[in-house]
Amino acid sequence: MSLSHPALSEYASFARRLAAAARLETLPRFRGGGDVFAKDGPQYDPVTDADREAERVMRAMIAQAHPDHGVIGEEFGAERAEAEWRWILDPVDGTRAFVCGAASWATLIALERGAAPVLGLIDQPFTDECWIAAEGRTEYVRHGKAAPCRTSGETALADARISTTDPRPAVAYFNEEEAAAFDRIAHATRVARFSFDAYAYGLLAIGALDLVVETGLQHHDYAALAPVVEGAGGVVTNWRGDPLGTDDRGEILAAATPALHEAALKLLS
Amino acid sequence: MSLSHPALSEYASFARRLAAAARLETLPRFRGGGDVFAKDGPQYDPVTDADREAERVMRAMIAQAHPDHGVIGEEFGAERAEAEWRWILDPVDGTRAFVCGAASWATLIALERGAAPVLGLIDQPFTDECWIAAEGRTEYVRHGKAAPCRTSGETALADARISTTDPRPAVAYFNEEEAAAFDRIAHATRVARFSFDAYAYGLLAIGALDLVVETGLQHHDYAALAPVVEGAGGVVTNWRGDPLGTDDRGEILAAATPALHEAALKLLS
Repeated sequence: MSLSHPALSEYASFARRLAAAARLETLPRFRGGGDVFAKDGPQYDPVTDADREAERVMRAMIAQAHPDHGVIGEEFGAERAEAEWRWILDPVDGTRAFVCGAASWATLIALERGAAPVLGLIDQPFTDECWIAAEGRTEYVRHGKAAPCRTSGETALADARISTTDPRPAVAYFNEEEAAAFDRIAHATRVARFSFDAYAYGLLAIGALDLVVETGLQHHDYAALAPVVEGAGGVVTNWRGDPLGTDDRGEILAAATPALHEAALKLLS
Repeated sequence: MSLSHPALSEYASFARRLAAAARLETLPRFRGGGDVFAKDGPQYDPVTDADREAERVMRAMIAQAHPDHGVIGEEFGAERAEAEWRWILDPVDGTRAFVCGAASWATLIALERGAAPVLGLIDQPFTDECWIAAEGRTEYVRHGKAAPCRTSGETALADARISTTDPRPAVAYFNEEEAAAFDRIAHATRVARFSFDAYAYGLLAIGALDLVVETGLQHHDYAALAPVVEGAGGVVTNWRGDPLGTDDRGEILAAATPALHEAALKLLS
Protein backbone atom coordinates (compact mmCIF):
# COMPACT_ATOMS: atom_id res chain seq x y z
CA MET A 1 0.00 0.00 0.00
CA SER A 2 1.35 3.45 -0.92
CA LEU A 3 1.55 4.83 2.58
CA SER A 4 1.39 8.55 2.10
CA HIS A 5 0.22 11.23 -0.27
CA PRO A 6 -0.86 14.76 0.69
CA ALA A 7 -4.38 14.18 -0.68
CA LEU A 8 -5.04 10.87 1.07
CA SER A 9 -6.60 12.17 4.27
CA GLU A 10 -8.93 14.34 2.19
CA TYR A 11 -9.84 11.30 0.07
CA ALA A 12 -10.50 9.28 3.23
CA SER A 13 -13.01 11.90 4.40
CA PHE A 14 -14.54 11.90 0.94
CA ALA A 15 -14.86 8.09 1.03
CA ARG A 16 -16.79 8.37 4.30
CA ARG A 17 -19.14 10.89 2.67
CA LEU A 18 -19.66 8.45 -0.23
CA ALA A 19 -20.56 5.70 2.27
CA ALA A 20 -22.94 8.02 4.13
CA ALA A 21 -24.68 8.90 0.86
CA ALA A 22 -24.91 5.20 -0.10
CA ARG A 23 -26.61 4.47 3.24
CA LEU A 24 -29.47 6.76 2.30
CA GLU A 25 -30.17 4.50 -0.68
CA THR A 26 -29.51 1.08 0.86
CA LEU A 27 -30.81 1.20 4.42
CA PRO A 28 -34.42 2.24 3.61
CA ARG A 29 -34.63 -0.75 1.25
CA PHE A 30 -33.24 -3.29 3.77
CA ARG A 31 -35.95 -5.54 5.28
CA GLY A 32 -38.47 -3.49 3.34
CA GLY A 33 -37.65 -0.36 5.30
CA GLY A 34 -37.36 -1.40 8.93
CA ASP A 35 -40.91 -0.70 10.05
CA VAL A 36 -42.60 -2.27 7.04
CA PHE A 37 -41.50 -5.84 6.59
CA ALA A 38 -42.49 -6.11 2.97
CA LYS A 39 -41.92 -9.20 0.93
CA ASP A 40 -40.07 -9.21 -2.40
CA GLY A 41 -42.64 -9.42 -5.16
CA PRO A 42 -42.34 -9.55 -8.93
CA GLN A 43 -42.31 -5.74 -9.23
CA TYR A 44 -40.18 -5.08 -6.16
CA ASP A 45 -36.49 -5.92 -6.01
CA PRO A 46 -35.06 -3.94 -3.09
CA VAL A 47 -31.51 -5.26 -3.37
CA THR A 48 -31.19 -4.40 -7.06
CA ASP A 49 -32.65 -0.95 -6.43
CA ALA A 50 -30.30 -0.42 -3.47
CA ASP A 51 -27.28 -1.53 -5.51
CA ARG A 52 -28.08 0.68 -8.49
CA GLU A 53 -29.20 3.81 -6.66
CA ALA A 54 -26.26 3.70 -4.22
CA GLU A 55 -23.76 3.38 -7.07
CA ARG A 56 -25.50 6.16 -9.00
CA VAL A 57 -25.23 8.63 -6.12
CA MET A 58 -21.59 7.75 -5.41
CA ARG A 59 -20.65 8.14 -9.09
CA ALA A 60 -22.33 11.55 -9.21
CA MET A 61 -20.39 12.71 -6.13
CA ILE A 62 -17.08 11.51 -7.59
CA ALA A 63 -17.77 13.14 -10.98
CA GLN A 64 -18.51 16.43 -9.24
CA ALA A 65 -15.71 16.48 -6.66
CA HIS A 66 -12.98 14.68 -8.62
CA PRO A 67 -13.80 14.81 -12.34
CA ASP A 68 -10.32 13.55 -13.24
CA HIS A 69 -10.67 10.36 -11.13
CA GLY A 70 -11.66 7.03 -12.65
CA VAL A 71 -14.54 4.86 -11.40
CA ILE A 72 -15.11 1.12 -11.65
CA GLY A 73 -18.46 0.04 -10.24
CA GLU A 74 -20.19 -3.32 -10.01
CA GLU A 75 -23.39 -1.98 -11.58
CA PHE A 76 -22.35 0.55 -14.23
CA GLY A 77 -18.86 -0.54 -15.27
CA ALA A 78 -15.71 1.54 -15.87
CA GLU A 79 -15.27 5.26 -16.58
CA ARG A 80 -11.84 6.90 -17.03
CA ALA A 81 -10.29 3.58 -15.98
CA GLU A 82 -6.82 4.80 -17.03
CA ALA A 83 -6.85 7.71 -14.56
CA GLU A 84 -4.10 7.97 -11.90
CA TRP A 85 -6.70 7.78 -9.08
CA ARG A 86 -9.47 5.21 -9.50
CA TRP A 87 -12.46 4.48 -7.23
CA ILE A 88 -13.70 0.87 -7.01
CA LEU A 89 -17.33 0.59 -5.86
CA ASP A 90 -19.45 -2.36 -4.72
CA PRO A 91 -22.61 -0.70 -3.41
CA VAL A 92 -24.10 -3.87 -1.85
CA ASP A 93 -21.65 -6.70 -1.23
CA GLY A 94 -23.55 -9.71 0.15
CA THR A 95 -26.86 -9.48 -1.70
CA ARG A 96 -27.89 -12.90 -0.34
CA ALA A 97 -27.45 -11.58 3.21
CA PHE A 98 -29.40 -8.44 2.22
CA VAL A 99 -32.42 -10.42 1.00
CA CYS A 100 -32.32 -12.62 4.13
CA GLY A 101 -32.38 -9.66 6.51
CA ALA A 102 -28.85 -10.32 7.80
CA ALA A 103 -26.77 -7.26 8.68
CA SER A 104 -23.55 -8.59 7.14
CA TRP A 105 -23.92 -7.00 3.69
CA ALA A 106 -21.73 -3.97 3.20
CA THR A 107 -20.93 -1.08 0.92
CA LEU A 108 -17.34 -1.44 -0.31
CA ILE A 109 -15.30 1.54 -1.48
CA ALA A 110 -11.66 1.41 -2.53
CA LEU A 111 -9.27 3.91 -4.05
CA GLU A 112 -6.34 2.83 -6.20
CA ARG A 113 -3.42 4.94 -7.35
CA GLY A 114 -2.00 3.32 -10.45
CA ALA A 115 -2.54 -0.35 -9.70
CA ALA A 116 -1.90 0.04 -5.96
CA PRO A 117 -4.73 0.09 -3.41
CA VAL A 118 -4.34 3.16 -1.17
CA LEU A 119 -7.69 3.28 0.63
CA GLY A 120 -10.32 0.73 1.64
CA LEU A 121 -13.71 1.17 3.31
CA ILE A 122 -16.30 -1.36 4.54
CA ASP A 123 -19.61 0.15 5.70
CA GLN A 124 -22.49 -1.73 7.38
CA PRO A 125 -25.40 0.70 7.68
CA PHE A 126 -27.85 -1.29 9.87
CA THR A 127 -25.32 -1.78 12.69
CA ASP A 128 -23.73 1.63 11.97
CA GLU A 129 -20.23 0.18 11.61
CA CYS A 130 -17.59 1.53 9.26
CA TRP A 131 -14.01 0.35 8.75
CA ILE A 132 -11.72 2.75 6.92
CA ALA A 133 -8.11 2.07 5.96
CA ALA A 134 -5.67 4.62 4.57
CA GLU A 135 -1.97 5.30 4.94
CA GLY A 136 -1.41 1.87 6.46
CA ARG A 137 -3.85 2.30 9.37
CA THR A 138 -7.41 1.00 9.81
CA GLU A 139 -10.02 2.71 11.96
CA TYR A 140 -13.37 1.35 13.18
CA VAL A 141 -16.14 3.94 13.50
CA ARG A 142 -19.47 3.36 15.27
CA HIS A 143 -21.99 5.85 16.60
CA GLY A 144 -19.53 8.64 15.77
CA LYS A 145 -16.66 7.16 17.81
CA ALA A 146 -13.48 6.05 16.04
CA ALA A 147 -10.96 3.52 17.36
CA PRO A 148 -7.82 2.09 15.78
CA CYS A 149 -8.09 -1.55 14.66
CA ARG A 150 -5.71 -4.35 15.57
CA THR A 151 -6.14 -7.98 14.62
CA SER A 152 -6.25 -10.53 17.46
CA GLY A 153 -2.58 -11.44 17.30
CA GLU A 154 -3.58 -15.12 17.25
CA THR A 155 -0.79 -17.37 15.96
CA ALA A 156 -2.12 -20.89 16.73
CA LEU A 157 -4.43 -22.60 14.25
CA ALA A 158 -5.95 -24.70 17.08
CA ASP A 159 -7.21 -21.53 18.82
CA ALA A 160 -8.29 -19.70 15.67
CA ARG A 161 -11.81 -18.58 14.77
CA ILE A 162 -12.36 -19.13 11.03
CA SER A 163 -14.98 -17.94 8.58
CA THR A 164 -16.11 -18.39 4.99
CA THR A 165 -19.35 -17.20 3.43
CA ASP A 166 -20.59 -20.62 2.24
CA PRO A 167 -18.69 -23.84 3.10
CA ARG A 168 -20.77 -26.11 0.87
CA PRO A 169 -19.16 -27.70 -2.20
CA ALA A 170 -20.50 -26.84 -5.65
CA VAL A 171 -23.34 -24.67 -4.36
CA ALA A 172 -22.01 -21.14 -4.09
CA TYR A 173 -18.29 -20.29 -4.32
CA PHE A 174 -16.26 -23.43 -3.55
CA ASN A 175 -15.78 -26.28 -6.00
CA GLU A 176 -15.38 -29.77 -4.44
CA GLU A 177 -11.62 -29.44 -3.96
CA GLU A 178 -11.85 -25.97 -2.44
CA ALA A 179 -14.58 -27.09 -0.03
CA ALA A 180 -12.38 -30.01 1.05
CA ALA A 181 -9.44 -27.65 1.58
CA PHE A 182 -11.60 -25.34 3.70
CA ASP A 183 -12.79 -28.35 5.73
CA ARG A 184 -9.18 -29.37 6.44
CA ILE A 185 -8.41 -25.95 7.90
CA ALA A 186 -11.74 -25.59 9.69
CA HIS A 187 -11.25 -28.92 11.46
CA ALA A 188 -7.88 -27.71 12.73
CA THR A 189 -9.40 -24.51 14.22
CA ARG A 190 -11.46 -23.81 17.34
CA VAL A 191 -14.69 -22.57 15.78
CA ALA A 192 -16.13 -21.70 12.36
CA ARG A 193 -18.90 -19.25 11.42
CA PHE A 194 -20.48 -18.60 8.01
CA SER A 195 -22.44 -16.15 5.84
CA PHE A 196 -20.57 -12.93 6.69
CA ASP A 197 -19.43 -11.75 3.22
CA ALA A 198 -17.25 -8.60 3.49
CA TYR A 199 -18.24 -8.14 7.14
CA ALA A 200 -15.90 -11.06 8.01
CA TYR A 201 -12.88 -8.94 7.06
CA GLY A 202 -14.11 -6.20 9.36
CA LEU A 203 -14.43 -8.73 12.20
CA LEU A 204 -10.90 -9.92 11.43
CA ALA A 205 -9.62 -6.32 11.60
CA ILE A 206 -11.07 -5.78 15.11
CA GLY A 207 -9.73 -9.07 16.45
CA ALA A 208 -13.07 -10.90 16.56
CA LEU A 209 -12.16 -13.47 13.87
CA ASP A 210 -8.69 -14.84 13.07
CA LEU A 211 -8.96 -16.37 9.58
CA VAL A 212 -11.10 -15.86 6.47
CA VAL A 213 -10.76 -18.33 3.58
CA GLU A 214 -12.75 -17.76 0.39
CA THR A 215 -12.86 -18.02 -3.39
CA GLY A 216 -14.96 -16.22 -5.97
CA LEU A 217 -13.88 -12.69 -5.03
CA GLN A 218 -13.73 -10.14 -7.82
CA HIS A 219 -11.76 -6.91 -8.06
CA HIS A 220 -14.65 -4.80 -6.69
CA ASP A 221 -14.87 -7.18 -3.68
CA TYR A 222 -11.27 -7.51 -2.57
CA ALA A 223 -10.02 -4.02 -3.47
CA ALA A 224 -11.49 -2.59 -0.23
CA LEU A 225 -10.87 -5.64 1.96
CA ALA A 226 -7.11 -5.98 1.68
CA PRO A 227 -6.28 -2.45 2.96
CA VAL A 228 -8.69 -2.90 5.90
CA VAL A 229 -7.06 -6.18 7.01
CA GLU A 230 -3.48 -5.04 6.32
CA GLY A 231 -4.01 -1.71 8.09
CA ALA A 232 -4.96 -3.67 11.23
CA GLY A 233 -1.81 -5.81 11.10
CA GLY A 234 -3.26 -8.78 9.21
CA VAL A 235 -1.96 -10.63 6.15
CA VAL A 236 -3.88 -11.08 2.89
CA THR A 237 -2.86 -13.19 -0.12
CA ASN A 238 -4.42 -15.74 -2.45
CA TRP A 239 -4.28 -19.47 -1.56
CA ARG A 240 -0.71 -19.75 -2.90
CA GLY A 241 0.67 -16.83 -0.93
CA ASP A 242 0.63 -14.59 -4.03
CA PRO A 243 -1.05 -11.19 -4.39
CA LEU A 244 -4.86 -11.08 -4.81
CA GLY A 245 -6.06 -11.17 -8.39
CA THR A 246 -3.18 -13.31 -9.69
CA ASP A 247 -5.23 -16.55 -9.86
CA ASP A 248 -8.38 -17.29 -11.83
CA ARG A 249 -10.52 -18.47 -8.87
CA GLY A 250 -10.71 -15.22 -6.90
CA GLU A 251 -8.92 -16.84 -3.94
CA ILE A 252 -8.37 -15.00 -0.67
CA LEU A 253 -6.70 -16.05 2.57
CA ALA A 254 -6.79 -13.38 5.26
CA ALA A 255 -5.13 -14.00 8.62
CA ALA A 256 -4.60 -12.14 11.87
CA THR A 257 -0.83 -12.78 11.88
CA PRO A 258 1.94 -13.98 9.55
CA ALA A 259 2.31 -17.19 11.61
CA LEU A 260 -1.38 -18.04 11.30
CA HIS A 261 -1.29 -17.19 7.60
CA GLU A 262 1.61 -19.59 7.08
CA ALA A 263 -0.10 -22.41 9.01
CA ALA A 264 -3.29 -22.00 6.96
CA LEU A 265 -1.35 -21.78 3.68
CA LYS A 266 0.23 -25.19 4.36
CA LEU A 267 -3.20 -26.83 4.74
CA LEU A 268 -4.52 -25.17 1.58
CA SER A 269 -1.92 -26.58 -0.80
CA MET B 1 -50.28 -20.87 23.59
CA SER B 2 -52.60 -19.78 26.43
CA LEU B 3 -53.85 -16.61 24.87
CA SER B 4 -54.92 -14.53 27.80
CA HIS B 5 -54.43 -14.08 31.51
CA PRO B 6 -54.81 -10.80 33.43
CA ALA B 7 -51.16 -10.88 34.55
CA LEU B 8 -49.65 -11.51 31.12
CA SER B 9 -49.14 -7.94 29.98
CA GLU B 10 -47.45 -7.18 33.31
CA TYR B 11 -45.23 -10.24 32.83
CA ALA B 12 -44.36 -9.09 29.30
CA SER B 13 -43.16 -5.74 30.66
CA PHE B 14 -41.23 -7.59 33.33
CA ALA B 15 -39.59 -9.82 30.68
CA ARG B 16 -38.39 -6.70 28.85
CA ARG B 17 -36.88 -5.41 32.10
CA LEU B 18 -35.11 -8.76 32.55
CA ALA B 19 -33.66 -8.45 29.02
CA ALA B 20 -32.57 -4.87 29.65
CA ALA B 21 -30.79 -5.96 32.84
CA ALA B 22 -29.12 -8.88 31.02
CA ARG B 23 -27.80 -6.43 28.38
CA LEU B 24 -25.82 -4.61 31.06
CA GLU B 25 -23.94 -7.86 31.71
CA THR B 26 -23.56 -9.20 28.16
CA LEU B 27 -22.92 -6.20 25.92
CA PRO B 28 -19.84 -4.82 27.75
CA ARG B 29 -18.24 -8.26 27.39
CA PHE B 30 -19.00 -8.62 23.65
CA ARG B 31 -15.94 -8.03 21.44
CA GLY B 32 -14.04 -7.16 24.60
CA GLY B 33 -16.20 -4.13 25.21
CA GLY B 34 -16.60 -2.40 21.88
CA ASP B 35 -13.75 0.08 22.09
CA VAL B 36 -11.20 -2.36 23.44
CA PHE B 37 -10.88 -5.34 21.14
CA ALA B 38 -9.34 -7.68 23.72
CA LYS B 39 -8.49 -11.25 22.93
CA ASP B 40 -9.68 -14.19 25.04
CA GLY B 41 -6.82 -15.25 27.27
CA PRO B 42 -6.50 -18.03 29.83
CA GLN B 43 -7.83 -15.80 32.64
CA TYR B 44 -10.48 -14.07 30.56
CA ASP B 45 -13.60 -15.82 29.29
CA PRO B 46 -16.07 -13.10 28.35
CA VAL B 47 -18.83 -15.39 27.10
CA THR B 48 -18.89 -17.51 30.26
CA ASP B 49 -18.86 -14.37 32.42
CA ALA B 50 -21.65 -12.84 30.32
CA ASP B 51 -23.73 -16.02 30.54
CA ARG B 52 -23.33 -16.40 34.30
CA GLU B 53 -23.70 -12.76 35.33
CA ALA B 54 -26.72 -12.18 33.07
CA GLU B 55 -28.50 -15.23 34.50
CA ARG B 56 -27.58 -14.20 38.04
CA VAL B 57 -29.14 -10.74 37.68
CA MET B 58 -32.30 -12.11 36.02
CA ARG B 59 -32.76 -14.73 38.76
CA ALA B 60 -32.38 -12.07 41.45
CA MET B 61 -35.05 -9.90 39.78
CA ILE B 62 -37.47 -12.83 39.47
CA ALA B 63 -36.91 -13.89 43.10
CA GLN B 64 -37.66 -10.35 44.27
CA ALA B 65 -40.65 -9.54 42.05
CA HIS B 66 -42.22 -13.01 41.77
CA PRO B 67 -40.92 -15.17 44.62
CA ASP B 68 -43.56 -17.84 43.87
CA HIS B 69 -42.43 -18.27 40.23
CA GLY B 70 -40.11 -21.06 39.17
CA VAL B 71 -36.88 -20.56 37.22
CA ILE B 72 -35.00 -22.90 34.89
CA GLY B 73 -31.73 -21.42 33.64
CA GLU B 74 -28.98 -22.76 31.43
CA GLU B 75 -26.26 -21.87 33.94
CA PHE B 76 -27.72 -22.46 37.40
CA GLY B 77 -30.40 -25.12 36.87
CA ALA B 78 -33.95 -25.33 38.24
CA GLU B 79 -35.57 -23.64 41.25
CA ARG B 80 -39.25 -24.09 42.18
CA ALA B 81 -39.65 -26.03 38.92
CA GLU B 82 -43.15 -27.21 39.99
CA ALA B 83 -44.52 -23.65 40.26
CA GLU B 84 -47.54 -22.63 38.15
CA TRP B 85 -45.50 -19.90 36.39
CA ARG B 86 -41.98 -20.81 35.33
CA TRP B 87 -39.30 -18.66 33.67
CA ILE B 88 -36.92 -20.35 31.22
CA LEU B 89 -33.63 -18.44 30.75
CA ASP B 90 -30.81 -18.77 28.22
CA PRO B 91 -28.67 -15.71 28.92
CA VAL B 92 -26.40 -16.09 25.85
CA ASP B 93 -27.75 -18.32 23.10
CA GLY B 94 -25.13 -18.60 20.34
CA THR B 95 -21.89 -18.55 22.30
CA ARG B 96 -19.94 -19.40 19.13
CA ALA B 97 -21.33 -16.28 17.46
CA PHE B 98 -20.50 -14.30 20.61
CA VAL B 99 -16.83 -15.31 20.57
CA CYS B 100 -16.62 -14.58 16.82
CA GLY B 101 -17.96 -11.04 17.20
CA ALA B 102 -21.17 -11.82 15.29
CA ALA B 103 -24.31 -10.01 16.46
CA SER B 104 -26.58 -13.06 16.15
CA TRP B 105 -26.28 -14.31 19.74
CA ALA B 106 -29.31 -13.52 21.86
CA THR B 107 -30.73 -13.54 25.34
CA LEU B 108 -33.73 -15.89 25.43
CA ILE B 109 -36.49 -15.54 28.01
CA ALA B 110 -39.65 -17.64 28.12
CA LEU B 111 -42.51 -17.95 30.56
CA GLU B 112 -44.53 -21.15 30.89
CA ARG B 113 -47.79 -21.64 32.73
CA GLY B 114 -48.05 -25.30 33.58
CA ALA B 115 -46.38 -26.92 30.60
CA ALA B 116 -47.66 -24.31 28.12
CA PRO B 117 -45.45 -21.52 26.80
CA VAL B 118 -47.24 -18.17 27.26
CA LEU B 119 -44.45 -15.67 26.58
CA GLY B 120 -41.26 -15.66 24.49
CA LEU B 121 -38.55 -13.02 24.13
CA ILE B 122 -35.46 -12.85 21.89
CA ASP B 123 -33.10 -9.95 22.62
CA GLN B 124 -30.04 -8.95 20.55
CA PRO B 125 -28.25 -6.17 22.46
CA PHE B 126 -25.62 -5.04 19.91
CA THR B 127 -28.20 -4.31 17.19
CA ASP B 128 -30.76 -3.22 19.81
CA GLU B 129 -33.42 -5.63 18.54
CA CYS B 130 -35.99 -7.33 20.73
CA TRP B 131 -38.80 -9.69 19.75
CA ILE B 132 -41.49 -10.25 22.36
CA ALA B 133 -44.43 -12.61 22.02
CA ALA B 134 -47.39 -12.81 24.40
CA GLU B 135 -51.11 -13.44 24.07
CA GLY B 136 -50.63 -14.75 20.53
CA ARG B 137 -48.96 -11.61 19.14
CA THR B 138 -45.28 -10.88 18.46
CA GLU B 139 -43.77 -7.39 18.51
CA TYR B 140 -40.40 -6.23 17.20
CA VAL B 141 -38.81 -3.39 19.19
CA ARG B 142 -35.80 -1.36 18.03
CA HIS B 143 -34.55 2.03 19.20
CA GLY B 144 -37.68 2.34 21.34
CA LYS B 145 -40.12 1.81 18.45
CA ALA B 146 -42.40 -1.24 18.44
CA ALA B 147 -44.02 -2.81 15.38
CA PRO B 148 -46.18 -5.92 15.04
CA CYS B 149 -44.48 -8.90 13.36
CA ARG B 150 -45.82 -10.87 10.44
CA THR B 151 -43.99 -13.67 8.66
CA SER B 152 -43.42 -13.28 4.91
CA GLY B 153 -46.46 -15.28 3.85
CA GLU B 154 -44.22 -17.28 1.49
CA THR B 155 -45.81 -20.56 0.41
CA ALA B 156 -43.45 -21.78 -2.36
CA LEU B 157 -40.34 -23.75 -1.43
CA ALA B 158 -38.62 -22.59 -4.65
CA ASP B 159 -38.83 -18.94 -3.50
CA ALA B 160 -38.01 -19.58 0.15
CA ARG B 161 -35.03 -18.26 2.10
CA ILE B 162 -33.78 -20.99 4.44
CA SER B 163 -31.40 -21.00 7.40
CA THR B 164 -29.67 -23.37 9.78
CA THR B 165 -26.87 -22.55 12.20
CA ASP B 166 -24.34 -25.08 10.86
CA PRO B 167 -25.08 -27.19 7.76
CA ARG B 168 -22.01 -29.43 8.07
CA PRO B 169 -22.49 -33.12 8.90
CA ALA B 170 -21.03 -34.50 12.15
CA VAL B 171 -19.36 -31.21 13.16
CA ALA B 172 -21.89 -29.29 15.22
CA TYR B 173 -25.59 -30.21 15.39
CA PHE B 174 -26.48 -32.38 12.38
CA ASN B 175 -25.54 -36.04 12.06
CA GLU B 176 -24.91 -37.31 8.50
CA GLU B 177 -28.58 -38.10 7.82
CA GLU B 178 -29.81 -34.78 9.17
CA ALA B 179 -27.26 -32.85 7.11
CA ALA B 180 -28.41 -34.73 4.00
CA ALA B 181 -32.05 -33.92 4.81
CA PHE B 182 -31.19 -30.24 5.22
CA ASP B 183 -29.33 -30.32 1.89
CA ARG B 184 -32.40 -31.75 0.15
CA ILE B 185 -34.53 -28.87 1.36
CA ALA B 186 -31.87 -26.21 0.84
CA HIS B 187 -31.40 -27.27 -2.79
CA ALA B 188 -35.13 -26.81 -3.35
CA THR B 189 -35.07 -23.24 -1.96
CA ARG B 190 -33.89 -19.91 -3.39
CA VAL B 191 -31.11 -19.06 -0.94
CA ALA B 192 -29.57 -20.37 2.30
CA ARG B 193 -27.74 -18.48 5.07
CA PHE B 194 -26.03 -19.86 8.16
CA SER B 195 -24.75 -19.12 11.69
CA PHE B 196 -27.75 -17.16 13.03
CA ASP B 197 -28.69 -19.23 16.12
CA ALA B 198 -31.85 -17.83 17.78
CA TYR B 199 -31.65 -14.67 15.67
CA ALA B 200 -32.90 -16.73 12.68
CA TYR B 201 -36.30 -17.12 14.37
CA GLY B 202 -36.48 -13.36 14.81
CA LEU B 203 -35.71 -12.89 11.10
CA LEU B 204 -38.44 -15.41 10.30
CA ALA B 205 -40.91 -13.48 12.46
CA ILE B 206 -40.29 -10.21 10.58
CA GLY B 207 -40.57 -11.84 7.15
CA ALA B 208 -36.85 -11.74 6.31
CA LEU B 209 -36.39 -15.53 6.30
CA ASP B 210 -38.98 -18.17 5.40
CA LEU B 211 -37.68 -21.45 6.87
CA VAL B 212 -35.42 -22.52 9.73
CA VAL B 213 -34.43 -26.19 10.03
CA GLU B 214 -32.30 -27.33 12.97
CA THR B 215 -31.55 -30.06 15.48
CA GLY B 216 -29.85 -29.95 18.87
CA LEU B 217 -32.25 -27.47 20.48
CA GLN B 218 -32.87 -27.84 24.19
CA HIS B 219 -35.79 -26.66 26.30
CA HIS B 220 -34.07 -23.38 27.22
CA ASP B 221 -33.49 -22.71 23.48
CA TYR B 222 -36.86 -23.43 21.94
CA ALA B 223 -39.12 -22.29 24.79
CA ALA B 224 -38.75 -18.65 23.71
CA LEU B 225 -38.56 -19.26 19.95
CA ALA B 226 -41.87 -21.02 19.36
CA PRO B 227 -44.09 -18.19 20.77
CA VAL B 228 -42.14 -15.58 18.72
CA VAL B 229 -42.66 -17.47 15.44
CA GLU B 230 -46.26 -18.50 16.17
CA GLY B 231 -47.22 -14.99 17.29
CA ALA B 232 -46.10 -13.72 13.87
CA GLY B 233 -48.23 -16.26 12.00
CA GLY B 234 -45.56 -18.94 11.51
CA VAL B 235 -45.66 -22.67 12.20
CA VAL B 236 -43.24 -24.54 14.49
CA THR B 237 -42.99 -28.30 15.01
CA ASN B 238 -40.29 -30.96 15.12
CA TRP B 239 -39.23 -32.75 11.91
CA ARG B 240 -42.23 -35.12 12.12
CA GLY B 241 -44.81 -32.42 12.54
CA ASP B 242 -45.12 -33.11 16.29
CA PRO B 243 -44.71 -30.62 19.15
CA LEU B 244 -41.19 -29.49 20.09
CA GLY B 245 -39.49 -31.59 22.73
CA THR B 246 -41.20 -34.86 21.74
CA ASP B 247 -38.16 -36.30 19.93
CA ASP B 248 -34.67 -37.00 21.29
CA ARG B 249 -32.72 -34.96 18.71
CA GLY B 250 -34.00 -31.48 19.58
CA GLU B 251 -35.53 -31.09 16.11
CA ILE B 252 -37.16 -27.88 14.97
CA LEU B 253 -38.83 -26.89 11.70
CA ALA B 254 -40.09 -23.32 11.65
CA ALA B 255 -41.91 -21.98 8.60
CA ALA B 256 -43.54 -18.75 7.51
CA THR B 257 -46.78 -20.48 6.49
CA PRO B 258 -48.58 -23.82 6.89
CA ALA B 259 -48.08 -24.55 3.16
CA LEU B 260 -44.33 -24.00 3.34
CA HIS B 261 -44.17 -26.05 6.54
CA GLU B 262 -45.91 -28.94 4.82
CA ALA B 263 -43.63 -28.79 1.77
CA ALA B 264 -40.52 -28.83 3.98
CA LEU B 265 -41.89 -31.62 6.15
CA LYS B 266 -42.25 -33.86 3.08
CA LEU B 267 -38.58 -33.43 2.20
CA LEU B 268 -37.45 -34.10 5.78
CA SER B 269 -38.97 -37.55 6.09
